Order: sequence, then C-alpha cells, then structure tokens
Amino acid sequence: MGEVKVIGSTSSLFCTRVEWALKLKGVEYEYMHEDLRNKSPLLLKHNPVHKKVPVILHGDRAVAESLVILEYIDDTWKQNPLLPEDPYERSMARFWAKFSDEKVRISVSNSLPWSEGEEKEKAIESARESLSFLEEQIEGKTFFGGEKIGFLDLAVGWIPLGLGVMEQVGEMKLLDAEKFPSLHEWSQNFIKIPLIKEALPPREKLVDNFTASVSYMRSLASQKQ
Amino acid sequence: MGEVKVIGSTSSLFCTRVEWALKLKGVEYEYMHEDLRNKSPLLLKHNPVHKKVPVILHGDRAVAESLVILEYIDDTWKQNPLLPEDPYERSMARFWAKFSDEKVRISVSNSLPWSEGEEKEKAIESARESLSFLEEQIEGKTFFGGEKIGFLDLAVGWIPLGLGVMEQVGEMKLLDAEKFPSLHEWSQNFIKIPLIKEALPPREKLVDNFTASVSYMRSLASQKQ
Repeated sequence: MGEVKVIGSTSSLFCTRVEWALKLKGVEYEYMHEDLRNKSPLLLKHNPVHKKVPVILHGDRAVAESLVILEYIDDTWKQNPLLPEDPYERSMARFWAKFSDEKVRISVSNSLPWSEGEEKEKAIESARESLSFLEEQIEGKTFFGGEKIGFLDLAVGWIPLGLGVMEQVGEMKLLDAEKFPSLHEWSQNFIKIPLIKEALPPREKLVDNFTASVSYMRSLASQKQ
Repeated sequence: MGEVKVIGSTSSLFCTRVEWALKLKGVEYEYMHEDLRNKSPLLLKHNPVHKKVPVILHGDRAVAESLVILEYIDDTWKQNPLLPEDPYERSMARFWAKFSDEKVRISVSNSLPWSEGEEKEKAIESARESLSFLEEQIEGKTFFGGEKIGFLDLAVGWIPLGLGVMEQVGEMKLLDAEKFPSLHEWSQNFIKIPLIKEALPPREKLVDNFTASVSYMRSLASQKQ
C-alpha cells in the first residue's frame, strides 16, 4: 500500500491521537510538521475541505478528521484492535468519542477561559457536568478500553495534557481529584505510559498557543462590552 | 438478542436514517413516537446525555446518535452492508457523512432562514460551497454508495426533503438543478425509491416545525437590533 505519513502540528492534540494509534499498531510513519500560519500545498491538496491537520497519507490515499483516521487505521491494520469486537461496545466507544469532541472539549474551550463572573461560573458548571459523564465511563476500569488502551482512550487522550493547559491559562480548576477520582487517576496514569508520553507535544508549546488565543478572545469580548 | 425498537419523531430526519437502515437490512422493528415537547421516561432513561431522538433499543441495549446507530446496525446485521468493505472507502463515507452533518446542515439551517440582506447572501454562498463538495462526490454515480444505497446515501438522505422544506420556509433556492446537476438528480431519484419513500415523515409536519423555529429565531434577531 505504500508509505505512511502524518501531516500534523505540535500544537494540536488531535494529531497526537493519530500518532498514538500508529504506534499502538506498530506501523512506521514519517511525521511532517505543518506550519499552520502558512499552510503547505500538500495539506491544501489532501484536505481541501477543512484545510486542517491531522491528515494521514497512505500510499496515494489521504484521510482527514482524526476520529475518521482512527477508524481507517483500525480497519487497515488489524493487529492490536482499537475498537472492541462487540457491536454494542464499538458503538459505545464511538458515542463517547463523539461526546468528548463535541461536548467536553467545547464546554471547556469555548467561552470558559475568557469569560468572567457569573458567565464563567455557568461555563464551569457545564464543563463539570460533561466530565462527570466521562467519570462514569472510566469508573472501576484501568482504561476506557478495559484492560488495555482502546479507541476511546485515544479520543479522550487530549484531557491529561490539554485540560491541564486550559486550566492553567484560563485560571480555573476542573478535573478535581475529589470530584472525578477515576478520571483523574486515569489521566495521571495515561500520560506516564512510555508510548503515549513520547508522542505528546511539548507542554510549553500548547500553553503559548492557548494563551495567544485566549488573549485574542478576551480582547474581542472586552470590545463588545 | 431481542426485539428492535426505534424511539423517534416524525419531525426529525435523523430518525428516518435509522428506519431506512433497518429496512435495508430487512430487520423488523417497532416505531415508538416521541413527543419532543413532553419527553418520555423511556427516552430520558436511554439517552440521558443528549435527551434526543433517535435511540435504537435492541433487547436490553440502547444506542443513541444517528450515525453511531447506523454503524451499530451495520456491525450487527451483516446482510446488505451499508459501509463499503475497503478501509479507504469506508473512511470516505464516514468523512462525508460527518461533513454533511456538521457543515452542510449547519450552513443551511443556522442563521440562513432568518437572516436578511448581506448576511443572507453570505450564508447562501457558504451553503452552496458546502453543497458543491457533495456534488463532486455524487458526480457520475447513481448513489453515493455506487451502484446501491450505502451509508452516505442515508447520511445525506435528509437533503431531498429537508433542504426543500428549508428552502420553502427560508424563501431561498439552494439546490439548483443547473449548479448541482448530479446532486439534484440523486435527490429527485432517491426519494422515489419505495423503501425510502415509505419511511419519510409527512412534508407538512416538517414545514410546520421549521416555520415555528424560524419565526422564533426571527423574533429573537429583531429584538437584538
């Protein structure tokens, strides 16, 4: 089928998911760093719709959208399955991955870090409500995938590092060890696993990027007032 | 595994997708109509996260989110596969289904029907851009799935009826036969197929519902001015 390449950026934990999946499968790949302020013709050619990373290139094929890429990887390389075999458990992994992208990430990253007062309190409440659903999913388990890392672990794998960065920049605490003991524990353990740790982007890079976007959003919000 | 039930509403074309998939598989099911203004304990029990239809019940299992349900149906009943076998083609069906839900639907339904003047022109432009990507996908084919109805046909299956209703209520034309000849043709043919047609909700019901939400959004927009 040809070589595997990942077009990615160290400022996006969506890209890290794809690297994790390939590493778990033992698939060799070349990482191509994309400058998101000056997008390459390669990225624009292979993801003309969204013009976003990550994109996986596999021979002459290109797939975009990180969760779609995870499914592609799992369908292509059958070793170390990411999704469970049982149709119902597969559907649960997909349901919670979608929930994590659409509800958890959005409730944490939208408005929260640059809101103030009552608006901020409400946003924190909503973010905690989303996290509590994930807490229920991991209770009593080592991984979301059960005994080993699975699709959903990779999908929510942005939390240990990404949520910490958001908390720091947004000056708030969300993933409280008392309120979310199981999610907190999973979070601590997950990024200590060597294979997971080695693909993580540098924390400072994420802090810088998120600080820049929060400053920009705060300035927009203050102009509106 | 037990009986199959679909909790749905005639005002949601997301539910129709699920019925189409079951019909294509030849799976018998009971349809349970949900009153969305007065949600049932059954719905709240089985979709406590989103509290939305559709939900499929299969014995003691419950799955929510229409695209996740389609995957569940395809994983459970292997006859008449909805997704292609090839991993790349599977990924393309998933990519465009997500695109259709996130970009096309949102570009058509958000703001457009209740915006005016320049804002409306911009929204129409953006909706047409999204539709042009789908036009490229169906060019030269009978179905998005190729020679037979597949996953992506069901995912974009809201277009023939739903887009027409939005056009009527929002007083605009988007799916132009000249600009989008292949998508227009697919759209015309798709809802003539007996199996597809018999599960479609009554058009007037959709018009009434959409008219009510557009009136509400117009009144909110005029209060802001």
